[in-house]
Amino acid sequence: MAQKYVQTHEVSFFECDVNRTMTIPAILGVAIKASEIQSEELGRGTAFIQQFGLTWVVTSYVLEITRLPKVDERISISTKATEYNKYFCYRQFWLHDQAGNELVMIEAVFSLMDIKKRKLSSVKEEIVSPYESQKIQRIKRFPKLATMQSDAKWSYRVRFNDIDSNQHVNNAVYLNWMFDVLGFDFLTTYTPKLVLIRFDKEVAYGQQVDSHFELTETGSGKKTSHEIRTGEQLNSVANIYWQKK
Amino acid sequence: MAQKYVQTHEVSFFECDVNRTMTIPAILGVAIKASEIQSEELGRGTAFIQQFGLTWVVTSYVLEITRLPKVDERISISTKATEYNKYFCYRQFWLHDQAGNELVMIEAVFSLMDIKKRKLSSVKEEIVSPYESQKIQRIKRFPKLATMQSDAKWSYRVRFNDIDSNQHVNNAVYLNWMFDVLGFDFLTTYTPKLVLIRFDKEVAYGQQVDSHFELTETGSGKKTSHEIRTGEQLNSVANIYWQKK
Repeated sequence: MAQKYVQTHEVSFFECDVNRTMTIPAILGVAIKASEIQSEELGRGTAFIQQFGLTWVVTSYVLEITRLPKVDERISISTKATEYNKYFCYRQFWLHDQAGNELVMIEAVFSLMDIKKRKLSSVKEEIVSPYESQKIQRIKRFPKLATMQSDAKWSYRVRFNDIDSNQHVNNAVYLNWMFDVLGFDFLTTYTPKLVLIRFDKEVAYGQQVDSHFELTETGSGKKTSHEIRTGEQLNSVANIYWQKK
Repeated sequence: MAQKYVQTHEVSFFECDVNRTMTIPAILGVAIKASEIQSEELGRGTAFIQQFGLTWVVTSYVLEITRLPKVDERISISTKATEYNKYFCYRQFWLHDQAGNELVMIEAVFSLMDIKKRKLSSVKEEIVSPYESQKIQRIKRFPKLATMQSDAKWSYRVRFNDIDSNQHVNNAVYLNWMFDVLGFDFLTTYTPKLVLIRFDKEVAYGQQVDSHFELTETGSGKKTSHEIRTGEQLNSVANIYWQKK
């Protein structure tokens, strides 16, 4: 059985947008934080990983959102590393309210990146063994994302504080670029229920990115498709499913 | 004696920039978080304040930085509300390393804002009494900031996620705009030692801001002066003193 780590968190006003609910970047922040603390406690913190010249990167997230956490709400975050194969490690996170209701479930795929070569490295047993996750042979497929027909895009310049200590644009920033293009009216009328996002290629300081988007109707709500591109290079792709608040 | 609140924090990679040290917005985030938890524990959380139609806003910060916290470092954050007068509440924060050395000292000035009228409100005894801070008559003067001679500026559009649950641009975003104009080379060569920032007027969604800046030499380092403006309106002003890393 994989090791499970649980902690509580009080949702701050600055983790919330005008809807007074937590932003997706803030949710991913507290989730990643929980996994970092678990790693430290299992003796597999950054210092251990860096011995090998490696750092963790997230290659995809799926978020299933029952209800977004609210300003000042006390929530619990639990996480465990579930499975791994030669190149990828699979981890789940759950956010619950105080009554034990599930608010958000996250499936994340992690890889180890060689810091100098900027390339994925194979998973080392001595790094993952303490998490007691299951070794599997197959590579899990990320859900197929819709192809985009629209040419709509907004451009963004990478800012200094968009770059994290991994020397590339932090994952959370991609989500800000994707959300921002949808506009105030949309983002205060609709709430995200399902977010599928894949990170294909890192973005560096000084690059200009285009945030492409397309809005389509679904039976009960809306779907938005997103691509972050630097010129011809696809850096990230996402589908988000929304319902009226 | 004012109530003191202390907590520990593990510095995450995403709270750090390329220098692998904590960003000023991330430092202010953990500080504000500590004061929020203290307020909850004293029965003076957001729900209590909102009964009066009020919300806390920060009107200025002074940060004295001995050393910026590093990736993965375990730090302690302590805070107490020190004094208050008719319109302002004064609070201090300290970040310490595990050996007890002071890393950062922060002096913050808070006000209560009427959420509907968007105006400052006088301080209510029943809100501040549990903190056991000292009532004073005088208004403390914020250090005088240098006037700017330069016309250098960069323009920024307010993004959806720049707006927090107080319905205006979060304080941390002003600092991102001020830092970003200094460029990668400067920000990886110099480290901030003293930050003085005042918030004069809130910025709303849809506004375009200009981040004005000027660089001057001091005896042992550099000084940068900053103004955030929307047209003729001055929204925020800051001076930052830097030394070579």
